[in-house]
Amino acid sequence: MADTAQLFADAVGTDRVLAVDVINDDYTHDEALTAEPVTPAAVVLPETTEEVATILRTATEHGIPITARGAGTGMSGGCRPIDGGVVVSFERMDDILEIDRENFVAVVQPGVQLDELDEALAPFGLAYQVYPGEYSATLGGNVSTNAGGMRAVKYGVTRHHVLGLEAVLATGETIRTGGKIVKVSTGYDLTQLIVGSEGTLALVTEVTLKLYPRATHGATVLAPFPTIEAVTKAVPKIVASGVGPQILEYIDMLTMAAATAFVGLDLGIPDDIKEAALAYLVVSMESMHDDRLEADVVAVSELLFELGAMDVYVLPPAAAAGLIDAREKAFWVAKANDADDVVDVVVPRAAIPDFMARVAAIAADNGAWIAGCGHAGDGNVHMAVFQKDPEIRSTIMKALFAAGMALGGAISGEHGLGTEKKRYFLELEDPTKIELMRRIKAAFDPNGILNPGTIFD
Amino acid sequence: MADTAQLFADAVGTDRVLAVDVINDDYTHDEALTAEPVTPAAVVLPETTEEVATILRTATEHGIPITARGAGTGMSGGCRPIDGGVVVSFERMDDILEIDRENFVAVVQPGVQLDELDEALAPFGLAYQVYPGEYSATLGGNVSTNAGGMRAVKYGVTRHHVLGLEAVLATGETIRTGGKIVKVSTGYDLTQLIVGSEGTLALVTEVTLKLYPRATHGATVLAPFPTIEAVTKAVPKIVASGVGPQILEYIDMLTMAAATAFVGLDLGIPDDIKEAALAYLVVSMESMHDDRLEADVVAVSELLFELGAMDVYVLPPAAAAGLIDAREKAFWVAKANDADDVVDVVVPRAAIPDFMARVAAIAADNGAWIAGCGHAGDGNVHMAVFQKDPEIRSTIMKALFAAGMALGGAISGEHGLGTEKKRYFLELEDPTKIELMRRIKAAFDPNGILNPGTIFD
Repeated sequence: MADTAQLFADAVGTDRVLAVDVINDDYTHDEALTAEPVTPAAVVLPETTEEVATILRTATEHGIPITARGAGTGMSGGCRPIDGGVVVSFERMDDILEIDRENFVAVVQPGVQLDELDEALAPFGLAYQVYPGEYSATLGGNVSTNAGGMRAVKYGVTRHHVLGLEAVLATGETIRTGGKIVKVSTGYDLTQLIVGSEGTLALVTEVTLKLYPRATHGATVLAPFPTIEAVTKAVPKIVASGVGPQILEYIDMLTMAAATAFVGLDLGIPDDIKEAALAYLVVSMESMHDDRLEADVVAVSELLFELGAMDVYVLPPAAAAGLIDAREKAFWVAKANDADDVVDVVVPRAAIPDFMARVAAIAADNGAWIAGCGHAGDGNVHMAVFQKDPEIRSTIMKALFAAGMALGGAISGEHGLGTEKKRYFLELEDPTKIELMRRIKAAFDPNGILNPGTIFD
Repeated sequence: MADTAQLFADAVGTDRVLAVDVINDDYTHDEALTAEPVTPAAVVLPETTEEVATILRTATEHGIPITARGAGTGMSGGCRPIDGGVVVSFERMDDILEIDRENFVAVVQPGVQLDELDEALAPFGLAYQVYPGEYSATLGGNVSTNAGGMRAVKYGVTRHHVLGLEAVLATGETIRTGGKIVKVSTGYDLTQLIVGSEGTLALVTEVTLKLYPRATHGATVLAPFPTIEAVTKAVPKIVASGVGPQILEYIDMLTMAAATAFVGLDLGIPDDIKEAALAYLVVSMESMHDDRLEADVVAVSELLFELGAMDVYVLPPAAAAGLIDAREKAFWVAKANDADDVVDVVVPRAAIPDFMARVAAIAADNGAWIAGCGHAGDGNVHMAVFQKDPEIRSTIMKALFAAGMALGGAISGEHGLGTEKKRYFLELEDPTKIELMRRIKAAFDPNGILNPGTIFD
């Protein structure tokens, strides 16, 4: 066993450590399209919070970089290992510790997967409402990137559902923040600071999540529009209607065709509409009451026609599930089609038409192809960029981010910066804020062992 | 003009500065019952963000402590001046800069009052959903303490509605965080860190707030219960029912009698019920649809009977408004009755019965009288403590906070720590977290000029 692996084997036991010669390729990367895989010096698999603390004390003592890892489904390289560093994988800390039906919270270890949590909650009529596209993602990973997903238009993103954390600091102390409480004004909100910090501030060992009653009825309508501008202009009106959609997604023509083909879905849309529609809006609603849902579907359908929809399809449940599934797989479709990078710029909801116009100009100016879909209700635009030349692509990426920021948005709505988007962040963001964030980082991690190279250089 | 006042007059103009001899008593305190008034060396009244930056640069240069002030309605001494320090009052920065109906946000200066914002939003059918009891409070003050209030059971507290900030750092740099966007994963969440920091991290000069469609229909039901335990046990069941109450408050017998008398309200409850009821539950619901609201009222009323309510009154609108008003005035009632301190401990919702039992024991053990009401849906228990002896009262306060924390709660759900609750925080909280918060404080405010004495010593 190499030196580094041996250090951790001595600290927490040989059966908790994978040395470099037995490390599976899976540990060397996440799903970022641009990050070269890196094999770490060791992968450590803690089973308890105490072991995590021991690992971090050992890493601090020896100055070894630590990269926390959930399921590796991230999009920005945030869990890509550091050369000579150690990956702490939470795959063995995967217990749902408690489902508290009186306080409407679940307490989970970071290695619990979204699909596992959902399965455990369903029998109780409860739901955790954050669903990024990939259900095999872990709660720990979701906390790390502040994951979002399609339901965010109604329920918000991960940070809105994390009520408390147990976390281990770089120097080995374990803290507990928040709890089974929905409000607190007692010192600084460490919970919200750690959520979205991409493994750079602390390692999360337990998460207390807010739950909701599980809606008993749901419906999805699909509306083709003649232009992407028409679809994006309809979005603020639907939000303003007060119907409270659970999902409000736009899908451009190319993405719709590729994604439905990818999952083998036929939505029964007539060919003449398919040919004329440049973009689609997907609106899902949910309720505890069948009659209220039906009334909402009628109201939304009428509104969609008023807003210029070419037609409105109330999808049968299987088709609706298929369409949501296809939308969730948009990344895999892009990857299968050899996309070169993906972005998830967020802009004010009403600025999507402006932003999309700038995207089209950026693509044209740089001889690139940019296809997309996105969380229209949130202003969170997901795009696949097709341009092989890394220098031109870098120009495109920077232009996309700068355009989003100029409209009052940010580089990432839910993917995070990781190693792959940080250079744009460091170039485009206000240096005063970056310096402030660096000082916060130092307040948590004075020796800089937690995920160096993510967010900051 | 004394030296300190002159410094700031030189920096931002004489008409922006009140020197010590003309400082109104209002500036010397907030509404904390235990804090002795302090007259600052000067009150500065900036009119622009640039002036705030100049004020902070001057304060940094001369090492002068700065206390930010909104309307002075805080409960924990968070805006009490520091001897020799300067109060920055935001009363002249009171413009509603924008009501954006497409993105559903309002952009306001910190001196805007809640009632002013509500009045401006009503004609557009929009609402800002945080309503702490005092509508003359400012948005800046609300951001500072992360104010809550009765609607938090449905809508959350201030931090859930603040999408972005403009803030000036102690050293004079102005930063902008977040924006008109509902999600962001682009570095650390500075917005959420500043919210609730009680003027110790930065001075907020602009707030971007999330708005909602304003419900067109509302109803309030009042249910007397034979015991406080019965009322608190009913709460999780009502939340679990999925009806989504906008307000879910408990009011104990003493507070109900005193508060309704204070506002001259007769709810028409028969004497025999009044005599037998030890506590009341108030449930308000809202909807865009009259028929849905009616169905919800029926469902909640039936549920309340099942849960042991002695009767259920659907209040006429005027009586409902009167009752909410009376509940909001509970603090003033306590003050008028010579209460010695107030607390707003937060515990997990389902732990309220346990907590109330401990409160009763603490009161009995210490010869004190503790009356209360609270945001039952949030587990946020507001109590007035009647005990003149400061040493005994201190024992009581510490016991109340320790009891709340032992049940998984925190010292304050919405009032904050200020100068008046910090000693309990510093004594009872995990020292590792306190040290971490101190380092965060230093990252923002290396010279410690922002509200020293609040949260920390």
